[in-house]
Amino acid sequence: MRTDYKQLQKKLGYEFSDESLLIQALTHRSFKGAHNERLEFIGDSLLGMFVAEALYFEFPKATEGELTRMRSQIVKGQTLTAIAKEFELSQWLLLGPGEMKSGGCRRDSILEDVIEAIIGSVYLDSNIEQCKEFVLKLVKKRLADVDPSNALKDPKTQLQEWLQSRKRPLPVYEVINTTGQAHNQTFTVSCTLDDGQQLEATGTSRRKAEQSAARKALEVIKK
Amino acid sequence: MRTDYKQLQKKLGYEFSDESLLIQALTHRSFKGAHNERLEFIGDSLLGMFVAEALYFEFPKATEGELTRMRSQIVKGQTLTAIAKEFELSQWLLLGPGEMKSGGCRRDSILEDVIEAIIGSVYLDSNIEQCKEFVLKLVKKRLADVDPSNALKDPKTQLQEWLQSRKRPLPVYEVINTTGQAHNQTFTVSCTLDDGQQLEATGTSRRKAEQSAARKALEVIKK
Repeated sequence: MRTDYKQLQKKLGYEFSDESLLIQALTHRSFKGAHNERLEFIGDSLLGMFVAEALYFEFPKATEGELTRMRSQIVKGQTLTAIAKEFELSQWLLLGPGEMKSGGCRRDSILEDVIEAIIGSVYLDSNIEQCKEFVLKLVKKRLADVDPSNALKDPKTQLQEWLQSRKRPLPVYEVINTTGQAHNQTFTVSCTLDDGQQLEATGTSRRKAEQSAARKALEVIKK
Repeated sequence: MRTDYKQLQKKLGYEFSDESLLIQALTHRSFKGAHNERLEFIGDSLLGMFVAEALYFEFPKATEGELTRMRSQIVKGQTLTAIAKEFELSQWLLLGPGEMKSGGCRRDSILEDVIEAIIGSVYLDSNIEQCKEFVLKLVKKRLADVDPSNALKDPKTQLQEWLQSRKRPLPVYEVINTTGQAHNQTFTVSCTLDDGQQLEATGTSRRKAEQSAARKALEVIKK
């Protein structure tokens, strides 16, 4: 576990007045002492707001739905985890003994939280303008790469195009269950890919359940 | 339909440099011209952020979960609609002919969006500090009233206490469906109240589905 926090601040491009805020942001709740969950709460909303604002000005013709979808591309867990890995944040994490051994998904979700907590700690250490600058630097590459045309497409279309571009057969959707009365039904749909992977989702209409299952499939195959 | 926007600005306690931003915020997509959906996108994230920040400092001992629940109490649709009604915003709305006749839920949801759009328009008209001041004034009463003890309680407990305080019998929870394989099951649960109202919800565990159904029941009975 690295404790050269000066080095990390250099990497992050932000120097803390109060280094203990950075240390708290790196501290998982499994570790003793002040942990990062409250910082994560505040960082999450700052991140969402700065990204919303950037997209609003960057895409003056995008609809609310398009802006919302573009924002989720940027603030979703996978993206934040990837950013955390670029900074090799794992090396500075403060984890309890149980979590030290955990890897994979659990570690990814811890890293995602730490990025949000660091945003919160930068805010508390400085002010909203400096925090905005920090966040925009953090997501710069993702903002530049965000694909408005993909954000326009619904998940079923995206999944279809993704599979077609790899010469794979189309997914098969099937209603596997419906519950509830006529005007208040819940549909459960499965989406099966050619490699046998099967994702299930529910929705208030067959279409919504299919879109939701396609979204899950996209998350799995793009990992 | 009122067009005395100066009067509305007086009510809102904010004077616009560019009145057209306020007019856009009041314009539903059913009306011709620039509508409020993009403003709503940006206003929603500003509102979430300012409320998050206020709660963070107001409740230094609250956990992330408690802060999240308190924030939802404040930024939820019902609260925003109530605020819009206090300002009698309905009188200034710019609606298409079809929407003019709509009332009830649809109108409530339009009002909720307008509050968020007004927040976005104040931001674009001024800056983040002035927008923060505006938002905090808007939600002042709700921030003062927010009940951390209720935020601590899960929906099943809240529902139980709400019914008990009115001497009504407890709700009945029932698993009405399960789908999926052993480690990836989806549970559908119904929550039936003594007045016959029945809410359904799904979740990845029976407990989660019950909590979610209780949350729906709370929304319905507290309307």
